[in-house]
Amino acid sequence: MSLSSSLISELQQICGENGVMTSEVDRQNYSYDAAVLEPTIPAAVVRPNSKESIGKVISLCNDSGTPVTVRGAGTNLSGGTIPNKNGIVLLTNRMNRIIELNETDMYVRVEPGVVTADLAAQVAAKGLFYPPDPGSQAVSTIGGNVAENAGGLRGFKYGVTKDYVMAVEFFDALGRKVTSGSKTVKCVTGYNLAGLMTASEGTLGVFSEITLKLIPPPAASKAMMAVYDSVETATQTVAAIIADRIVPCTLEFMDNFTINAVEDFANVGLPRDAKALLLIEVDGHPAQVAEDGERIEQICKKLGARAIQVARNDAEKDKVWEARRAALSALARLKPTLVLEDATVPRSQIPAMVSAIEKLALKYDIPIGTFGHAGDGNLHPTLLTDRRDVAHWERVENCVADLFDAALSLGGTLSGEHGIGIAKAGFMKNEVGQSSIDFCRTMKAAIDPNNILNPGKIIGQ
Amino acid sequence: MSLSSSLISELQQICGENGVMTSEVDRQNYSYDAAVLEPTIPAAVVRPNSKESIGKVISLCNDSGTPVTVRGAGTNLSGGTIPNKNGIVLLTNRMNRIIELNETDMYVRVEPGVVTADLAAQVAAKGLFYPPDPGSQAVSTIGGNVAENAGGLRGFKYGVTKDYVMAVEFFDALGRKVTSGSKTVKCVTGYNLAGLMTASEGTLGVFSEITLKLIPPPAASKAMMAVYDSVETATQTVAAIIADRIVPCTLEFMDNFTINAVEDFANVGLPRDAKALLLIEVDGHPAQVAEDGERIEQICKKLGARAIQVARNDAEKDKVWEARRAALSALARLKPTLVLEDATVPRSQIPAMVSAIEKLALKYDIPIGTFGHAGDGNLHPTLLTDRRDVAHWERVENCVADLFDAALSLGGTLSGEHGIGIAKAGFMKNEVGQSSIDFCRTMKAAIDPNNILNPGKIIGQ
Repeated sequence: MSLSSSLISELQQICGENGVMTSEVDRQNYSYDAAVLEPTIPAAVVRPNSKESIGKVISLCNDSGTPVTVRGAGTNLSGGTIPNKNGIVLLTNRMNRIIELNETDMYVRVEPGVVTADLAAQVAAKGLFYPPDPGSQAVSTIGGNVAENAGGLRGFKYGVTKDYVMAVEFFDALGRKVTSGSKTVKCVTGYNLAGLMTASEGTLGVFSEITLKLIPPPAASKAMMAVYDSVETATQTVAAIIADRIVPCTLEFMDNFTINAVEDFANVGLPRDAKALLLIEVDGHPAQVAEDGERIEQICKKLGARAIQVARNDAEKDKVWEARRAALSALARLKPTLVLEDATVPRSQIPAMVSAIEKLALKYDIPIGTFGHAGDGNLHPTLLTDRRDVAHWERVENCVADLFDAALSLGGTLSGEHGIGIAKAGFMKNEVGQSSIDFCRTMKAAIDPNNILNPGKIIGQ
Repeated sequence: MSLSSSLISELQQICGENGVMTSEVDRQNYSYDAAVLEPTIPAAVVRPNSKESIGKVISLCNDSGTPVTVRGAGTNLSGGTIPNKNGIVLLTNRMNRIIELNETDMYVRVEPGVVTADLAAQVAAKGLFYPPDPGSQAVSTIGGNVAENAGGLRGFKYGVTKDYVMAVEFFDALGRKVTSGSKTVKCVTGYNLAGLMTASEGTLGVFSEITLKLIPPPAASKAMMAVYDSVETATQTVAAIIADRIVPCTLEFMDNFTINAVEDFANVGLPRDAKALLLIEVDGHPAQVAEDGERIEQICKKLGARAIQVARNDAEKDKVWEARRAALSALARLKPTLVLEDATVPRSQIPAMVSAIEKLALKYDIPIGTFGHAGDGNLHPTLLTDRRDVAHWERVENCVADLFDAALSLGGTLSGEHGIGIAKAGFMKNEVGQSSIDFCRTMKAAIDPNNILNPGKIIGQ
């Protein structure tokens, strides 16, 4: 810890004594996030409890050149919330109120620390729907979701977090309050800072309020599981469903390795011998659901699904999604270290990407469980390793680099939903080129002249 | 004209002799746009015909401190394409190719000068759908649509241009090529510059390529016209439809003044004595369309519609929308000067906003025809005047300022879809506050250090 005692004292004046944590154990707790990266112990953890106090904390940090890493639940997978040496972590968990839930105009205004699942539940209780459902929704926060532009299982039909951000209010590096966007569904007043701030990983400002679009919920839904004896036919089914212009709300893939990990972990009755599963849900008007469900069943059969199980009720449907949501935890048990990737390709390239992943698993001799949002071209190849095994870890790093190359060569992108953070900053150039990075560095340097807002993330130092 | 002959010669080397226009008449032609503002005659009009030439033109302008105003069709309504003195207009109309229309992955890559309606038609011919339909779509360009974040009639259900921008490639003020976004439906690789560039009105860069999302078209649709003897019941119907969680693709309003202007102009058979009309279209699965249509009819009746005419075929449907699309031209005939506003409110505030417009028309004794996207809270009160009549014009300016105040006091915004440009730059502060403008000015100054990219727009000088 190396903040001056006067700075600590000023932070305490702003946030209260309970709002500033400086003990060794507290600082250790906030030194890492869900990414497999070296932790960095912050100098203090600060918990503002009002908009104004966010601005004051940032001003203080700017004046003293103290790095600030804003953190919701720390569930991001790219090191976006790993703090800087001598920096503070600005925790948003005391700012967790729903400010306004407007049923008539279908929007909700929230503080950044609201938990995603809590928000979704409160919105659902009013007969409305907030679709984005990142895997970490039970603990993740809206502020973090917007900062990372979080995705989830429903992206295929409903899009991702950015598609629901109507307006933002944030404090910039100088502690000034900035607003962008509106409670109106159309707004072109000024630069689209709401767009810019989405996915900016805490490097351009700290959210104090976010306005999200809500929509009417679908009237009906239908879930099914298609079982395959071949990975290839499963992935071809994904491409065929999309080519047939059907828009499921969810279209998930799970390979044999993942199926068995899930069964070992949760024992939900998945077919252990299947080479691959597709988990599919359609929603909307009941007639649309019935027709789409029927068409999808036909496509699955035609392309060689060995069995298709349609959930007959909510309990069976929940079981399907419980299995899918258990995938990460199930794989995580198998080895000391798990690297969850999310390089993403155009949807039609899913068969090629799965094939590339299989080849890399063999080439580097690394167990890889692959599951994820096949309908979005957004798979999660999950590498199992032990970071303490230097040789194995080096193979993992090389394998991941090859995975990125494979995705880019298929017209894809480094990250579909996990962000760049520290983990992928070094690879950015391969996708967007140096001049794009230079443009962003120029912008960041002007907005944050002392480089205090989450320095080193996305565009490097 | 005050560009040096050596600069003109260099521009000719880049764009060819036909690519640089310097005659008085050509420069006059590009001195104004669709906004009611003083024209400014540019020093030259330049038409690059390749990506590389865009970059070279900008570099040249940056080195010589020459302002560049990029222009598609100049249909924007806020002065965003009025050039600067001693500056050039960079016309995109030679860059009008569709680079790739990918049916499988449902995206299209275009050059910025592609005409919106041409794109929509080519997309439709492949069985896909590009929803944004700004009023000027017959001539407007995609580059302009993205630069303005153009809206249109289908915003209620399908959103606006920004909801379809997957990726952009642009040249920045230094002539560097910058890319952001992906052909994948999920992408969080780097700052969301695709979001930032949308609605930036040519002030941060010049597009060289844009990737747009396409969707499957709706299977069915149904259009109807509801006729009202009272403005109030018409606007209450809008609120009731939304409150009932129905999502029409289009929900348009037209007042008596506009109805009669349209009849005088196009003679399409609208009821001249109606106080207001709602023009409504629902689309989607046939069963959904039938049910939504039925529910809307019931709501219209319940709230006092005197008649409801459902289009029985495409010809009748086309007639309804022809009438709506004629509104602006019809009103434009009546007086020498037409001021088309687009201050926007949350949907539920439409009755209050229409009432506020009526009061202002009386207060300032100005004829105002009101029509527009009621379902988006995005009305177009259209003030008829003669700019040469100094006293009347002053009343118009005061009335417009009051209109903005009314929208803001109802929780709305200065502009739903027309942009800020020069016309509304002075009002920005009332909505977003000075610190938000300062933030944007800092960003712009860093990205465009010589202030050559469309200076003066959005955030003033």
